[in-house]
Amino acid sequence: MPVEINPSQEKERIVEFIRTQIAKYEFEGAVIGISGGIDSAVVGKLLTEALGRERVFALILPERDSSKRTVSDSLLVCRYLGIRYSVKSISPLVRRLGIYRTKPPAFIFPRKIQEDYVRAQWQKTSSPYINDLKSAGGQSNRRNLAYYRTKNRLRMTILYYEAEQRGYAVAGTINRTEFLIGFYVKWGDDSSDIEPIMHLYKTQVFELAREIGLPQRIIEKEPSPDLAPGITDEFAIGLSYTDLDRILKKNELTLPLSDEDPELVEKVQKILAAVPYRKIRNLSLL
Amino acid sequence: MPVEINPSQEKERIVEFIRTQIAKYEFEGAVIGISGGIDSAVVGKLLTEALGRERVFALILPERDSSKRTVSDSLLVCRYLGIRYSVKSISPLVRRLGIYRTKPPAFIFPRKIQEDYVRAQWQKTSSPYINDLKSAGGQSNRRNLAYYRTKNRLRMTILYYEAEQRGYAVAGTINRTEFLIGFYVKWGDDSSDIEPIMHLYKTQVFELAREIGLPQRIIEKEPSPDLAPGITDEFAIGLSYTDLDRILKKNELTLPLSDEDPELVEKVQKILAAVPYRKIRNLSLL
Repeated sequence: MPVEINPSQEKERIVEFIRTQIAKYEFEGAVIGISGGIDSAVVGKLLTEALGRERVFALILPERDSSKRTVSDSLLVCRYLGIRYSVKSISPLVRRLGIYRTKPPAFIFPRKIQEDYVRAQWQKTSSPYINDLKSAGGQSNRRNLAYYRTKNRLRMTILYYEAEQRGYAVAGTINRTEFLIGFYVKWGDDSSDIEPIMHLYKTQVFELAREIGLPQRIIEKEPSPDLAPGITDEFAIGLSYTDLDRILKKNELTLPLSDEDPELVEKVQKILAAVPYRKIRNLSLL
Repeated sequence: MPVEINPSQEKERIVEFIRTQIAKYEFEGAVIGISGGIDSAVVGKLLTEALGRERVFALILPERDSSKRTVSDSLLVCRYLGIRYSVKSISPLVRRLGIYRTKPPAFIFPRKIQEDYVRAQWQKTSSPYINDLKSAGGQSNRRNLAYYRTKNRLRMTILYYEAEQRGYAVAGTINRTEFLIGFYVKWGDDSSDIEPIMHLYKTQVFELAREIGLPQRIIEKEPSPDLAPGITDEFAIGLSYTDLDRILKKNELTLPLSDEDPELVEKVQKILAAVPYRKIRNLSLL
């Protein structure tokens, strides 16, 4: 496949890009939300190489329904990066907004039961990710969407509050796969000043992570938006990243898809057809 | 000036635009934040004409530092429009984030003293609006920016929480003047699904308001972002809307500016030169 990267050169190219843009717009550094996942760990590392450790500040923003590993893995990443950080639970804000009342409390059930419950809810509809993109699926699905998206927007608001007080940029962690299939929260984790890995497929982010030498625990972790118990990325999307990226790449390069499993191709095509709903922004007569 | 509108035809054109877009993307209605100002009142009226009163829901979201007129004027607008609404103070959320601690409490001082204090702070720097656009002006100015912008982003988050539960669109109220000079909060009031008046200069919004027959009290009110005591739009920008729109129009039409006061022209040019800083979004290698 020609859309390949040389991880070592790619790293240098991104570091240079970050350095140039941060200088051009006179930011004094960058704030990043560290989730314990691979994307924010990679972006964090690229930021420190571009700006120096002392100009990168991390926020760890867990909440009631975060996985147990969220904080411990995030701390691991911050220590590995050697950057300043602060841990702030967003639960009190989420509670204030009345959002937890719409979902069973996490603490009284074992994690496994929560996860099974949420997964069953997610699969009640025939095409859960399409419904997510189209904000469709009836009243109960809409409550689910409002529940997880609001948390994401609160995190964005807090990242900017921190960044603007410091004169820092907010660094986002969206990758090309997420960007292409709309796997983000509009006006949430898609809202940033700089997106250092937006041009890289998820599978390429893994290549970069290995090049960088991230802790193995972070590389091997199953990617998850950590917005609802049990919902990993691949579960939510309904495809593995390997399949998804391979088909997306062929699609971008208009290569034949005849050697692909037609069921997988159809899944991707259905997703791409629904993406315009996610991209609705400021419709105007301008 | 050729950039003129026929208010009656313009109203029909916007109503048709709203109806088409809401249907196209399968929204069941629209949520709007009503501030008591002219822009949200005009957009509210256009929404009700396009969708019917029963498909428009208003949120009134005051906070500690809102003007006394915010709620009463907003209620006046909602009753005039005949739409359902809910009043929710965002003060508890703002307080939770620690934002009020950075500013003197509003209640223990008379409004006049608060206003004088905030205005004096705003004018401490030589070009306050340029500093706002560039997020420049040192530590104390940065605290001011973080203070007012966070409130605006919380409002956006709450509007979407309401809208997504209902399957409604979020209607924004940005006008063309605000859009051109960057007079909005990035990822705050600029973040919406539909922007019915984004193509209209502020002075044209006034024309439309008179055509629509909005309550006189709303039309005659001095425009203000209502984010800090005493800071009206024209005070913040440093120009009257009449001057600003006239020069912006000539600028857009590349008409000669030789008959304009050079001081005003220079002010506008300095603003336009700083606007790219406000427009920084998702800088990437994509």
